[in-house]
Amino acid sequence: MDLQIRNGRVVIPFFIKIDPKNGKMTDYDTHIERYLSKLIDMFVDSETAKAFLKKNGETLIYEVYEKDIPEVNGEIRYCSSVTYPGKIGDEYFMTKGHFHKRPDTAELYYCIRGRGYMLMEKRDGEYALGEMYPGSAVYVPGDYAHRSINIGDEPLISLPVYPGDAGHVYRSIEDSGFKHIVVERNSKAVVIENPKYGKMLK
Amino acid sequence: MDLQIRNGRVVIPFFIKIDPKNGKMTDYDTHIERYLSKLIDMFVDSETAKAFLKKNGETLIYEVYEKDIPEVNGEIRYCSSVTYPGKIGDEYFMTKGHFHKRPDTAELYYCIRGRGYMLMEKRDGEYALGEMYPGSAVYVPGDYAHRSINIGDEPLISLPVYPGDAGHVYRSIEDSGFKHIVVERNSKAVVIENPKYGKMLK
Repeated sequence: MDLQIRNGRVVIPFFIKIDPKNGKMTDYDTHIERYLSKLIDMFVDSETAKAFLKKNGETLIYEVYEKDIPEVNGEIRYCSSVTYPGKIGDEYFMTKGHFHKRPDTAELYYCIRGRGYMLMEKRDGEYALGEMYPGSAVYVPGDYAHRSINIGDEPLISLPVYPGDAGHVYRSIEDSGFKHIVVERNSKAVVIENPKYGKMLK
Repeated sequence: MDLQIRNGRVVIPFFIKIDPKNGKMTDYDTHIERYLSKLIDMFVDSETAKAFLKKNGETLIYEVYEKDIPEVNGEIRYCSSVTYPGKIGDEYFMTKGHFHKRPDTAELYYCIRGRGYMLMEKRDGEYALGEMYPGSAVYVPGDYAHRSINIGDEPLISLPVYPGDAGHVYRSIEDSGFKHIVVERNSKAVVIENPKYGKMLK
């Protein structure tokens, strides 16, 4: 169903469907696909990422379907977020992560399928992990950068919902990374300090 | 997990779980249960509602679990909404419905289980139905009163998400009802004009 906008606001109700199996959204307006070749430097071990790419070819790490709801206070923006299973070395596939342009806005992630973590981190390094599994809902308060991390073996599908005027800032994450990363050690997901923090290539 | 509030804002991430089977939320702060005895006049046929009550005893029509997120711009409020299957005469079990106190705020309903409709109606009577089934997400724009209607035979469970400062107004619905109602005719859900509109007993 098409969005109907008047004076910059949604004026007619509409509905879409998110396929709980694969996260595909009907009638989306925007589809973002993030491939490994563009995310080499996001992973701690860029050399292993390059080798992975050479061996496996181009690999879809995550994708997002969204409706282009006006970025206005009072509206609610949402999307379907799908992060695929896999690892670069011992680091799990994950999303880039972002801060909000308006720092005092929260975001709710409702998990539809899969198993993972929401890594949330403030600029001072304070961090938290939110568990993601079907039916869990993680509340990301304002001032926390956040990224989804797939620690399972099926797609991690979630529904992020946030205020229309939150806005996204990717730049500081692309430049510096998170201070913490989630890696697999002895078949368990653990948080460690990011040895590459502040030294992303970008 | 307990909410941690400072200066009226959520300051620490947290997560809860919504059981996809029955809609129960872990660590909720508020639990609202709406029983038939208090909703007699919400249904068109109050006499049939009274007879239903006499025959079946007290009946839970719907319930809501929520976290007490501060009602502040920038926060995101959400709950788990469960409307049970059943009918009073040919009128389906439903929620009271509400407008938002701040009329220009939207709300997103993500359906987790069941089958039903979101009835959305403006003060001038303009209305729309949003289909609710697992994976559907209904966008309720500002200025629309909205109520969930269970047309299936299992609980209708959804996750409503709305801006922290939206606020709820039940009064005008309690006084007047919706101009339209959804009833079963020949085993199908159809919208008709509410013969009792403006004449609710309250």
